[in-house]
Amino acid sequence: MNKQEIYRFTKEWVYEAGVILRESVTMDLEVEYKTSAADLVTEKDKEIEMFFVKKINATFPNHYILGEEDTASDQKDYNPQNEVVWLVDPIDGTTNFVHQKRNFCISVGVYDNGKPVVGVIYDPISDEMFHALAGEGVYLNDQRMKLPSKVTTYEQALISMNHLWLAPNDFLCEQPIQQMATDIRGFRYIGSAALELAYVSVGRLDGAIFAGLGSWDFGAGYILLQEQGLSVTTLAGDGIDFFKPSSLLTSSKELHQVVQSNYIRLK
Amino acid sequence: MNKQEIYRFTKEWVYEAGVILRESVTMDLEVEYKTSAADLVTEKDKEIEMFFVKKINATFPNHYILGEEDTASDQKDYNPQNEVVWLVDPIDGTTNFVHQKRNFCISVGVYDNGKPVVGVIYDPISDEMFHALAGEGVYLNDQRMKLPSKVTTYEQALISMNHLWLAPNDFLCEQPIQQMATDIRGFRYIGSAALELAYVSVGRLDGAIFAGLGSWDFGAGYILLQEQGLSVTTLAGDGIDFFKPSSLLTSSKELHQVVQSNYIRLK
Repeated sequence: MNKQEIYRFTKEWVYEAGVILRESVTMDLEVEYKTSAADLVTEKDKEIEMFFVKKINATFPNHYILGEEDTASDQKDYNPQNEVVWLVDPIDGTTNFVHQKRNFCISVGVYDNGKPVVGVIYDPISDEMFHALAGEGVYLNDQRMKLPSKVTTYEQALISMNHLWLAPNDFLCEQPIQQMATDIRGFRYIGSAALELAYVSVGRLDGAIFAGLGSWDFGAGYILLQEQGLSVTTLAGDGIDFFKPSSLLTSSKELHQVVQSNYIRLK
Repeated sequence: MNKQEIYRFTKEWVYEAGVILRESVTMDLEVEYKTSAADLVTEKDKEIEMFFVKKINATFPNHYILGEEDTASDQKDYNPQNEVVWLVDPIDGTTNFVHQKRNFCISVGVYDNGKPVVGVIYDPISDEMFHALAGEGVYLNDQRMKLPSKVTTYEQALISMNHLWLAPNDFLCEQPIQQMATDIRGFRYIGSAALELAYVSVGRLDGAIFAGLGSWDFGAGYILLQEQGLSVTTLAGDGIDFFKPSSLLTSSKELHQVVQSNYIRLK
């Protein structure tokens, strides 16, 4: 497997898909509902995923694809630990895509025998591409990014979290999270998990907490975060299984420990 | 009073101040703490407010200035209902300014005998200036903005709110807000009130809820929102006193009524 080649193709395809999305936000979008009113999915979502499926199948016929829209469903059973797998989110932040026409991104991660290799997250509206080849550092467009400054105390931290986890829910005890809201510098919430992970990797946010993500949501972000030496675990503190839905907590090592032990209580 | 002249000067000065801020985020900032760790204030904050005080005093010596940093404190007692008053926030979103080096803005509103006249909100990083002269519509840079599409149902709404109001607090009942989090399309939170009001005025957000703002926070935003026909009241549903701290609820008229009656309970 030629990692440099895969890195180059990923950036090229993601950019090309971004141009399509950037042009489409100026037009009206035909929107359909998937499972709930909060889970918008658009024709563009499927179109962009098919774009990647065709590119990947044509260029790397032996690779596998795990995408949010499940358009590559004719793949035979396989063990992702023994294959090259592309984790593709054609539009991360579809609600923002439809409502705000901004604050969404394309996220593509490539894993080789279960190991992160390439991560590319592209916001086509701000024209910011966050990308990494494992071992070679994180880039924003053409600029190598420094390691994010280590915010080690929760009093200083800006952390991304959905407001929903401060309300009663079945997964995460809300009282410690409510306490966290008053203890830390502040919560923020954009509404695109992949973009929020990219922002943590370059220090715009000091951490992020997610209760349930698909592989396509964190596939690229994980690589960026790992590359910057940040901790990435499930909310229970375990390593992440890249090919299953997962919760996620990321921040500097020092902050991660404080947040996890003081504020995270699974139900 | 020449409103066109004031409009032109406001845009010119705000842009000039924005250039200073844009250049300064590439340098290290000397930060001091004001009243709490969550309330960062920088030297730049004071410098930019003084920039406006000097410009306004030199050009309009009879005008009054209400600024967050209170640098124009030598003004004699006056009744703002009988004067021209400039509401100046030199950096709205100082925490973002320091931590993210983005998602902050300059906000300047001008009121004549208690009536909104000019509002200018400038994000120098994205180079977006939201501005209005009362009666002549809202502009983003040189582009006249359409009225935001009327999101009338809460199920469709993206609303800006600080996570803090879902935690126990002395001002706003948290349970209805927690219920709101599960009922609406979603909450968002950027951390700059003026920028969030500007976004509501152009339809990037469908509403915003604030429990306590200074006049300088909403002075410019109020004009943009009013100009677009959106409702702007206190959380109790009353008209806003422009020259005092205030809570604020804004959205389309239809959504405003639903949010206020279903979810807002003051303690």
